[in-house]
Amino acid sequence: MFGLFNDFKYKMAIVVRDDLKLSKGKLSAQVAHAAVSCAIKSEKNNKYFSEWFSEGQKKVVLKIDNLDSLIKVFNEAKSVGLTTELIKDAGLTEIPPGTITVLGIGPAPEGEIDKVVGNLKLL
Amino acid sequence: MFGLFNDFKYKMAIVVRDDLKLSKGKLSAQVAHAAVSCAIKSEKNNKYFSEWFSEGQKKVVLKIDNLDSLIKVFNEAKSVGLTTELIKDAGLTEIPPGTITVLGIGPAPEGEIDKVVGNLKLL
Repeated sequence: MFGLFNDFKYKMAIVVRDDLKLSKGKLSAQVAHAAVSCAIKSEKNNKYFSEWFSEGQKKVVLKIDNLDSLIKVFNEAKSVGLTTELIKDAGLTEIPPGTITVLGIGPAPEGEIDKVVGNLKLL
Repeated sequence: MFGLFNDFKYKMAIVVRDDLKLSKGKLSAQVAHAAVSCAIKSEKNNKYFSEWFSEGQKKVVLKIDNLDSLIKVFNEAKSVGLTTELIKDAGLTEIPPGTITVLGIGPAPEGEIDKVVGNLKLL
């Protein structure tokens, strides 16, 4: 299902707020939520979905310090026309309802994604 | 985007091998991979996708002891006709290439999912 990483031309980035200190279960559900939302949106808009999916749907999960920085990246990604999805948590556990937890960007060509999140570290 | 949890009629379950002790980043990428794969498969097969997605795409992330137990749940889920996806890791970091890491099941009505994974604990 996967190829080698250096064969990938497209990727999706999911940016996670590191200040929330979510549990593994909560965190992975939020990341999955962003990934599904971006995948379906890009499929509907016919924006790199089939190339990315057939290639093996590469994803990188990145961390960011806080909400302000996350929103900055979100606005940058939107302004250059990338697919974006901000995820709010239902907040029944761990954090208050409506807390923005993660941001999905893409799929898009690797270079376009890196222009926006290239300075962020892997989670 | 989310409703209250007790409003959900459909869900997806993602079952994670607890014995691999994956990092948060690796784990959440694998869970997202399973979620996207199951979502796209269920969409193609017209199997509860639109109901689940429009309702807010509820997901539960569950843990299981080892590969044998994961495969048992996989076979059970397939035998009752649920959407399933086993995810293998490219294995360039942390674990050997081809390692089966997670299992996605659904989306489907909550009761159908619970028949197969009702005994597993949240991650």
